[in-house]
Amino acid sequence: MKTAPPIGAPVAAIDTPALVVDLDAFERNLCTMAAYAAARGLRLRPHAKTHKSAWIAAQQMAAGAVGVCVQKTSEAEALAQQGVADIYISNEVVDESKLARVAALARRCRLAIAVDSALGIERLALALRAAGGQVDVFVEVDVGHGRCGALPDAVGRLARQVVDAGLHFAGLQAYHGGAQHLRTPAAREAAIAHAASAVRSAQAALAGAGVDCPLVTGAGTGTFVHEAASGLWGELQAGSYVFMDRDYADNTSDDGAPRFEHALFVKSQVTSRGEDRAVVDAGHKSHAIDSGLPRVWQRSDLEFANGGDEHGILRPRGGRALLPTLGDTVWLLPGHCDPTVNLHDHLVGVRGGLDRGIVERVIEVDARGCVG
Amino acid sequence: MKTAPPIGAPVAAIDTPALVVDLDAFERNLCTMAAYAAARGLRLRPHAKTHKSAWIAAQQMAAGAVGVCVQKTSEAEALAQQGVADIYISNEVVDESKLARVAALARRCRLAIAVDSALGIERLALALRAAGGQVDVFVEVDVGHGRCGALPDAVGRLARQVVDAGLHFAGLQAYHGGAQHLRTPAAREAAIAHAASAVRSAQAALAGAGVDCPLVTGAGTGTFVHEAASGLWGELQAGSYVFMDRDYADNTSDDGAPRFEHALFVKSQVTSRGEDRAVVDAGHKSHAIDSGLPRVWQRSDLEFANGGDEHGILRPRGGRALLPTLGDTVWLLPGHCDPTVNLHDHLVGVRGGLDRGIVERVIEVDARGCVG
Repeated sequence: MKTAPPIGAPVAAIDTPALVVDLDAFERNLCTMAAYAAARGLRLRPHAKTHKSAWIAAQQMAAGAVGVCVQKTSEAEALAQQGVADIYISNEVVDESKLARVAALARRCRLAIAVDSALGIERLALALRAAGGQVDVFVEVDVGHGRCGALPDAVGRLARQVVDAGLHFAGLQAYHGGAQHLRTPAAREAAIAHAASAVRSAQAALAGAGVDCPLVTGAGTGTFVHEAASGLWGELQAGSYVFMDRDYADNTSDDGAPRFEHALFVKSQVTSRGEDRAVVDAGHKSHAIDSGLPRVWQRSDLEFANGGDEHGILRPRGGRALLPTLGDTVWLLPGHCDPTVNLHDHLVGVRGGLDRGIVERVIEVDARGCVG
Repeated sequence: MKTAPPIGAPVAAIDTPALVVDLDAFERNLCTMAAYAAARGLRLRPHAKTHKSAWIAAQQMAAGAVGVCVQKTSEAEALAQQGVADIYISNEVVDESKLARVAALARRCRLAIAVDSALGIERLALALRAAGGQVDVFVEVDVGHGRCGALPDAVGRLARQVVDAGLHFAGLQAYHGGAQHLRTPAAREAAIAHAASAVRSAQAALAGAGVDCPLVTGAGTGTFVHEAASGLWGELQAGSYVFMDRDYADNTSDDGAPRFEHALFVKSQVTSRGEDRAVVDAGHKSHAIDSGLPRVWQRSDLEFANGGDEHGILRPRGGRALLPTLGDTVWLLPGHCDPTVNLHDHLVGVRGGLDRGIVERVIEVDARGCVG
């Protein structure tokens, strides 16, 4: 059974492994990003694929966000069910039964969706007509990632199809996923300069098709300062800033971006000890490893080695370190927050720090496992 | 929302991404392993960390398994709750509150647990005394993985402590996780020869301490033929054989092991198409990538490239292949079953093949997310 700790319990009482949010750091991150966007007159629509939590979405919107993004229809359904009122599915849906769900959902909250194909637009229009719903439609342009999105030249034709189908064309989806974790500011700046050039081409194609472009939306935690500086993007979708994973912290940053703090940790416990190692009860069923293994928090003298699905193996880095002993708590900083959160049913919100804090809130991961 | 398909629906109606079990292949795998163990007079106690499902545990036990293994206390609780009556936590627990749960669970089902430290034994004995429960206690010996387990020489002392604490010493836990995916039969045989030597040393230490060794338990899908041939192991813990992931299939096998079939697949759908690529709606929130990316099933001309958390990118291998088109179904063979199953709330059991089968059963992943 997965039991959440009681509110008011000390950190020591949190069963391991557990995903713990440092609420003080989390709130500072919330405010920092909200202030950044407000100061520049930009809309903030944080990506909820990071946290999948209606409560966190509500905190973001209370701090000024216009709504949230999600990647999947089922994520939108789960968050809407918990009261999130403005959701953008920043991804393509072409399945007819799933589009029927999108159309049904559009009657329950303000909804937007991305398209990048004639077939997708055609089926979306049919589904909305059948259900009597309305959505904002963004045409996705491939700005350099080489994943989803139409070529800039094709955007005019697709936007024209959106308008002609009686749908509301809301603008361009322009997110460069591949740029977020480029290590140097110069590499990220160059990637977003390329993305900006693709956006300009797409805008020219829109003008050629006689379609106005109300908004360009995109950007992530690794690059948003560049999108913001371009003058093209009107809405930022950064999501990871609320938690800041190890991989984002590995980006070097003299690009003028505000600083965010690590706010998400795996609490683990030493359950086995050898002469040369301490084994903790958290493996890759507790944290995602797509962006590498976790780092041991505030113990740079310890190296986390892959112990498989259920274990982590700690060894002294360079051979010299006091290993934690049986029963000790070890805090891990996940390599990548989004898929780590998706492994857990709830996050444990702690106030007052990891050492002596108390459990203030259990945050449900409402859309955990909502991948469809 | 995560909605399971109705029983009797065609495969085409299964929403994507979904984790699908080919029930025909699954049942052949069940029978093959059960027959292998029975023919050699070996006990079979499959590892339920693979499937985390009480229904699959029941199928295994109906086919002759004596019970199942799990790795975590919460997994044992979840399976016991669903009626699994004989469970072995083949892992160490040292936390006092968790040991109180172990002791409570021991009053509800037949339970066993592994230990590898004096502290663990002491706390287990205290917890059992407080709750009035009984468990079988296996002392884990490190047989070469270098993760959990005592050195062979220390096993006599620990087993003596178990007995002196009034607990039931059930034998040795001897599993070599690191040997399972060594690619050649010779490498796996050598690793298990080393493990057997460690088991013999541990048995000598037990004899020196005047403690009988009722059973040696261990082995996985990659190596069990070697443990079986050794004459030392009396119980096999293989689990992945029910599903057979891509990584196990990548082992070469002229070691006389019975053949198992792939029985677990991710059903995905093409949601975006470029000139040179098809993008499917399954990324590493749908399948684990710790053992590498999935393979496209029966399409060796397509290469699956990492598309991040929510997407997979298919490209022609060597530049020549007919790419699937928008809306097409693409079946993926996960690199590693255990953490893939842990991402999903249910498995969709299909009878009659992936092409024209129907949904016969929705299999709950009862212990999904039970990592503590």
